[in-house]
Amino acid sequence: MKLTKDTNILIVGLGVIGGGYARALTKQGFHVRCITKEQKDIDYALSLGMIESGTTEVDPILIGNADLIVFALYPQVFVDWLRDYQHFFRSGTLITDVTGVKRSIVQTVQSLLREDVEFIAAHPMAGRERSGVEYSDDSVFQGANFIITPTEKNTPEAIALCYELGRLLGFARITELTPQKHDEMIAFLSQLTHCIAVTLMTCNDSPSLEEYTGDSFRDLTRIAKINDEMWSELFLLNRDELLRQMDCFAAEFSRFRYMLAMGDREGMREAMRLSTARRGRFDKPKH
Amino acid sequence: MKLTKDTNILIVGLGVIGGGYARALTKQGFHVRCITKEQKDIDYALSLGMIESGTTEVDPILIGNADLIVFALYPQVFVDWLRDYQHFFRSGTLITDVTGVKRSIVQTVQSLLREDVEFIAAHPMAGRERSGVEYSDDSVFQGANFIITPTEKNTPEAIALCYELGRLLGFARITELTPQKHDEMIAFLSQLTHCIAVTLMTCNDSPSLEEYTGDSFRDLTRIAKINDEMWSELFLLNRDELLRQMDCFAAEFSRFRYMLAMGDREGMREAMRLSTARRGRFDKPKH
Repeated sequence: MKLTKDTNILIVGLGVIGGGYARALTKQGFHVRCITKEQKDIDYALSLGMIESGTTEVDPILIGNADLIVFALYPQVFVDWLRDYQHFFRSGTLITDVTGVKRSIVQTVQSLLREDVEFIAAHPMAGRERSGVEYSDDSVFQGANFIITPTEKNTPEAIALCYELGRLLGFARITELTPQKHDEMIAFLSQLTHCIAVTLMTCNDSPSLEEYTGDSFRDLTRIAKINDEMWSELFLLNRDELLRQMDCFAAEFSRFRYMLAMGDREGMREAMRLSTARRGRFDKPKH
Repeated sequence: MKLTKDTNILIVGLGVIGGGYARALTKQGFHVRCITKEQKDIDYALSLGMIESGTTEVDPILIGNADLIVFALYPQVFVDWLRDYQHFFRSGTLITDVTGVKRSIVQTVQSLLREDVEFIAAHPMAGRERSGVEYSDDSVFQGANFIITPTEKNTPEAIALCYELGRLLGFARITELTPQKHDEMIAFLSQLTHCIAVTLMTCNDSPSLEEYTGDSFRDLTRIAKINDEMWSELFLLNRDELLRQMDCFAAEFSRFRYMLAMGDREGMREAMRLSTARRGRFDKPKH
C-alpha cells in the first residue's frame, strides 16, 4: 500500500490530535473522513473544511472503505473499539494510532487484531494542554518529533508508510524506537514533566501567587492544565517506567538540595553549567 | 522627588535587565546614562539609541548628577559598589535595584547607606535565560509583575516613585511585599523552578533524548540554560527559604509517586483537577 491522493483515510476520534491530523491531511489533498462521538465536532470540522464527511455512527461501509485508519482515542477506548468493530475492516487495511504509551497498547492490539490487518504504532510528540477539536492545530507538528514503534509483526511497507505519514503531517524528525525504549523515553520526557507540573501547582496553596509570578513558573506549569482522565490512564499504563524516572529525578533533586544546604557553591555551579550545555541541544529546529 | 523628563537616570550594570530598563526609559523620553564594565556594551547601546551616554569609569560627576540610580548588578557586586563609591552620590539621590533576593540585600544596603540617600528595593519579574545587553528587551515587561519591597526606612514618596517607575517600564501589576514575604514567594515561584529545570537536565544522561522530545520537556527546561554565577549567589542568599520550598515540593512529589505506585487513579485525578483549576489563574494578562 502506498499513500496516494486516492487513499481513503479514516480518523476515529476527532479531538485535539485527530483534528490536527485531519487538518494536515486534508490540506495535502487526501480524502479524510471521520468517526467521532459528538455531532458538534463533525459540524465544526465540516465548517472549516477539515474533513470530507463524518459520522457519530460506527458505519460499516465507511470503515470497510478505509485504506488507512488513524485511531486518536484514549488507550482503553481504542482497544475496546477494535474488539467490537474490527470485523468491519477490509482485508489489507492499515491502522495506526497516536497513543502516548506503547508497550501495553502495541502488545494488546497486535495480539487481538485480525491477521489480515496491520497495526503500526506511532506517537506524534506535539500535544496541547487543551482537549477538543477546536484546539486542534496542525502547525504544532512543524519542527516536532514523530516516533514510530514497530515490532517484528510489522512489514517494511507499513513502516515506510508511517514515515511518509509523519512527513505529510509536517513533522521535522521521524525516528523509530522499540515500544520498550519509547516508554522509557516518554516516562522521562513527557510523563515526569507532567508529574512535576502538577506537583508544582498542588504543593503550595498560598493565595495571590499569581500576582508575583514570573515566566519561569508559567513555563514550568503550562502543562499543569491537564486532562485527568487521559493522563491518569497513560501514567498507569507506564507505571514501572514512570516510577523509575520519578526516583531518578528525586535522587538528583535531593543531591542538589544537599549542595545548597552545605553551601557547596561550586557543586551547584557545575550542575548549572552541565544543565546549560545540555539544554542547548533541545531547542526546536527552526522552520 | 518626582519623575519628570528632566530627571537624570543612571543605570549601573548594562546587562539583560539594565538594558531593558534603558530601552524602556529612553523610549519614555528620559535622560538615561550608564556605567558598566564593558565598552562594547556601551557602544551597542549607543548604536541603538538606548542611552544618552555611558562610561566604564566610576565617574564622580555622572554619579553626582544622577537623581535616580538603578543598580542592575549581582548582589555582592552591588553591595561592594555602594561601599566603595557612595560618597559620590548627591544628597537626596534615590537608588533602586533589580536584585532577585531581598532580605539580605535590603538589610545590608539600608544599614550601610548614607543617611541622606534612600534605597527603595524592587524586583522586576521578567528575566531572560540569556545574559547580556544584546538580549535585553523591554517588551518582556509588558504584562509582567513588578514587586516593591519597602521597609520602615522608606518614605511614601520613594515608594510612590517606584510604582511610577514600574508603570513607566510597562509592568502590568505592581505590588508591595515585605522583604521576608518576597523571599518566600520567590523561593517557590522562581528559585525552586530553576532547581527543577537544572535537575531535569542533569538527572538523565541518555543520548539522543532531543530526538524524541516534545514541547513539555522544552518548556520545563527553558530556564535550565542558567547563569551559574548569578543563580548560585541568589540561591545561597535565600538558602533557608529555598530549602523549605524544595522540601515542600519533594514531599508532594512523593505523595503523587505513592498514589501512582498504589494505582490510586482517583487520587491522581483529583490532584490533576486541582492543578488544572489553579493553573488557570496564572495566565499572563493579555495586553
